[in-house]
Amino acid sequence: MRILTGRPLNAETPTESLRSWITANSVFFHRNQSELITAVSLTEWKLTVEGEVENPGEFSFGEILRYPKAICANTLECSGNGRSLLREKASGNPWTIGGVGNAVWGGVWLKELLRIVKPKESARHVGFEGMDEPYGAARLKFIRSIPLDKAMTSTLLAYEMKGEPLPLAHGFPLRALALGWVGANCCKWLRKITVLDRPYEGHYMDQVYRVFQKGQDPKSGTVVTQLPLKSFITQPLPGESLKPGTIVILGTSYGGERRVSRVDVSVDGGRSWFPAEFIGPHERFAWRQWQYVWTVKKRGTHCLMARAVDSEGNEQPMEAHWNVLGYGNNGVREHAISVFIV
Amino acid sequence: MRILTGRPLNAETPTESLRSWITANSVFFHRNQSELITAVSLTEWKLTVEGEVENPGEFSFGEILRYPKAICANTLECSGNGRSLLREKASGNPWTIGGVGNAVWGGVWLKELLRIVKPKESARHVGFEGMDEPYGAARLKFIRSIPLDKAMTSTLLAYEMKGEPLPLAHGFPLRALALGWVGANCCKWLRKITVLDRPYEGHYMDQVYRVFQKGQDPKSGTVVTQLPLKSFITQPLPGESLKPGTIVILGTSYGGERRVSRVDVSVDGGRSWFPAEFIGPHERFAWRQWQYVWTVKKRGTHCLMARAVDSEGNEQPMEAHWNVLGYGNNGVREHAISVFIV
Repeated sequence: MRILTGRPLNAETPTESLRSWITANSVFFHRNQSELITAVSLTEWKLTVEGEVENPGEFSFGEILRYPKAICANTLECSGNGRSLLREKASGNPWTIGGVGNAVWGGVWLKELLRIVKPKESARHVGFEGMDEPYGAARLKFIRSIPLDKAMTSTLLAYEMKGEPLPLAHGFPLRALALGWVGANCCKWLRKITVLDRPYEGHYMDQVYRVFQKGQDPKSGTVVTQLPLKSFITQPLPGESLKPGTIVILGTSYGGERRVSRVDVSVDGGRSWFPAEFIGPHERFAWRQWQYVWTVKKRGTHCLMARAVDSEGNEQPMEAHWNVLGYGNNGVREHAISVFIV
Repeated sequence: MRILTGRPLNAETPTESLRSWITANSVFFHRNQSELITAVSLTEWKLTVEGEVENPGEFSFGEILRYPKAICANTLECSGNGRSLLREKASGNPWTIGGVGNAVWGGVWLKELLRIVKPKESARHVGFEGMDEPYGAARLKFIRSIPLDKAMTSTLLAYEMKGEPLPLAHGFPLRALALGWVGANCCKWLRKITVLDRPYEGHYMDQVYRVFQKGQDPKSGTVVTQLPLKSFITQPLPGESLKPGTIVILGTSYGGERRVSRVDVSVDGGRSWFPAEFIGPHERFAWRQWQYVWTVKKRGTHCLMARAVDSEGNEQPMEAHWNVLGYGNNGVREHAISVFIV
């Protein structure tokens, strides 16, 4: 993996490992605001659910396992993925394309637990807090909240990742997973859920994970939620030298809660476009892998691009919407790659 | 894992690991006729394709990787899975329910290679031969063939298992995967493909992997092909003691090339039936996980059963069709479990 920072651990998946529908746990991207949790005692662990609820309570891991099970494919992406590919520099970890991965998760629907604690009339948001301790001088605790509606419809509390217990580095024993939403909404090492009458207020809600422009108050920006409609090429690699002939271009496209319905590929920097063929599983909330078989005779530099369309006809933009923290880079041009036919 | 035999290695997946849509590679069942291959040199490895073809040839691993990619979810099962649950003893490894697993595989369609070698008019079957050496006194080589039509429509040559290179124990670098068909048709450590004008003749085609009765010539029996329409319960475990209340019954159903469209569960030994709810991905050739939330007050022994129906209305049989080698046990009663409410 490519390590962006060692403390806290931020690392992206090698491009070769993004050519599969499933991303192996061993190379799944790491995004942390704090030190990794290195040990959890399941006998001591409890999940507290409190706040604007009629029946606050605690749940042991054994109790969590006894609820009806949910299994769901879901592509998880860091909101800053693609940041380093933006034309104008933006603050934050320099992710290229590997801050994303796809897994099949097992767990319990958050709504099952919320039904038991009974949110009050006043309930609007659901806050997540992990076991990880605040990091750095500011001692800012990583707490985030999502709207009650999202929590009640498509948020999983995951204890399983691809048929294995959730790995410690990915949030064991329990991770919130707002399906189709960026990783910042998917709190690891979950220990407390607080039902709130408004969005949680704090550094990680107000100052970051918002889309805003220079000179704008961060808090007036839009909170990052679902993954942008986006594509990138995983084969060939940028700058690769290839022989003339038949070249299989592989890539992936996703759109959070949207379904990707078409992907077009250009091998001439966007002048002409040809439809890619989808390969592999097609599940809501999960990326779609695709390929385009390119026959090339002309030597020289070729610029490859991919552009996704969702089932409602929305097109991935040719250029990303720049913002101060460089979130949601889904520009076709920003993700173009050059290859050399030699 | 539960080891059935150490040499050759035959081992089944623990029931707890069958409660996910994806079966982790680390606990995926092992079924071997020979010693495991412990090392493969990719630079020396070649796949030979010959026989009734116009252009016999060899393919390096690098060449295989350059073909268009196929990705497919596929449930793989040993034809003898469930053998030990048959009422009347049958010869062979005593599999319970764990000789099955589900994975998402990556590779190349076999038809891509066959198109290059061009099967002759006379071509009828496609034979697979692995790198594993014959085992035991009889020195019988494990060679099997499948019909050309299956080879041309839905057979993968897999080099990837759940986003990782195919593990050595599961056939690295390349495994034939006749989608929806039992493992005997899915040759590991593939090194030679032979196009034939008739089914391959040999021990593993004629004497075993056929369904026949006592006194019948094995060769007149039916060759095992696709997985039977089948269900089993993965939670609770057989013989488990549980408290009265709400109990989540988990299970899985599959049918090879057939799609499972309904699963019914009985908690009273088959007198009454209630529909299960499907959970998780739904992909052709892959099992469907399901659950039934059972509310029970009455203490004592309860007999749980599950029965699948496919999209053409075929029902899983209440009793398995017994045969000498105990293949294809898909009986509802054979897979019933008892639990105790205490």
